[in-house]
Amino acid sequence: MYEGPVQDLIDELGRLPGVGPKSAQRIAFHLLATEPADIERLQSALQKVKEGVVFCDVCGNVSAETTCRICRDPKRDLTLVCVVEEPKDVLAVERTREFKGRYHVLGGALDPLSGIGPDQLRIRQLLTRIGTPVDGVDISEVIIATDPNTEGEATATYLVRMLRDFPGLTVTRLASGLPMGGDLEFADELTLGRALSGRRSM
Amino acid sequence: MYEGPVQDLIDELGRLPGVGPKSAQRIAFHLLATEPADIERLQSALQKVKEGVVFCDVCGNVSAETTCRICRDPKRDLTLVCVVEEPKDVLAVERTREFKGRYHVLGGALDPLSGIGPDQLRIRQLLTRIGTPVDGVDISEVIIATDPNTEGEATATYLVRMLRDFPGLTVTRLASGLPMGGDLEFADELTLGRALSGRRSM
Repeated sequence: MYEGPVQDLIDELGRLPGVGPKSAQRIAFHLLATEPADIERLQSALQKVKEGVVFCDVCGNVSAETTCRICRDPKRDLTLVCVVEEPKDVLAVERTREFKGRYHVLGGALDPLSGIGPDQLRIRQLLTRIGTPVDGVDISEVIIATDPNTEGEATATYLVRMLRDFPGLTVTRLASGLPMGGDLEFADELTLGRALSGRRSM
Repeated sequence: MYEGPVQDLIDELGRLPGVGPKSAQRIAFHLLATEPADIERLQSALQKVKEGVVFCDVCGNVSAETTCRICRDPKRDLTLVCVVEEPKDVLAVERTREFKGRYHVLGGALDPLSGIGPDQLRIRQLLTRIGTPVDGVDISEVIIATDPNTEGEATATYLVRMLRDFPGLTVTRLASGLPMGGDLEFADELTLGRALSGRRSM
């Protein structure tokens, strides 16, 4: 198509998720007209990620230091742990401003067909963490916030089975139901079924 | 949001055209899980573009060498020149497989409000090119293929005025009209008007 370096850049950009050939072309020509300093900033950001991102040694979230900002925060409730699949889920829960505990990032969900079993996730670390009091404080509740899809549900079920044996530990799951602002008429039958079986007295 | 290098990468990716915050996050986490060798290829593609892309000294298209593949091709008709705004327009005309001449890339269209006048485009080079026979062959037709929008039309009008004085030179413009496969009912009035005034006898 194009000659030389421009086509190489279009090809490399086109490999990124969600970037089609047209977008790749647009980005490449944008970069052609960009100040070298801007390209350098992108290159150095890539370099740092390539050299290895630090993951928090407590929760497994992406981190700037050995222990992440949330796990270092003394105002956080040490008795509460919210288990999520990915770092982006931490961000989603943080945005609610409703959760004051800490997190545990599994690094995915159980998916045997893709070769992801319990050993590929940070489940062992979760069990160790629950069994080890921090500053004399025990974890009293684990909120399982895996995605409400097949893999996430399977992971939740597996975790409940593993966590059953810890005395005095409450294990909860995020509520499933109708999304706020949604329309009953347009809810899929699975969601509406969940909303029905999880109905609360008022 | 995220800490350290991951957020830096998300920020840099988010600056690219057409990449929103969600896409930037998705690309960043994809790159986190990518082999270092893949990131290196992207980095080196960026490096080559940063070091400067070569533009063809004849037509102004992006090129791997001093003169581009099309301008070097001895099978191309030297008497025909198609004037386009951008390198991607060369690609669009090439895809038709209808054009056997060579190109002239202006590098944009006249747009006084954005400070783009005739001196910011490769118009002087076009005039020199038309006045200089190659291997004793004169350019006999210039096809103006700028975009059919305000800036493109203004550029076409300006070029026609500049090219009028060359003896024996035909200046043509791409036909405007209904797009093939389109529907008369849904054509906008400007396009339909152009299609009417440009009607051909059958």
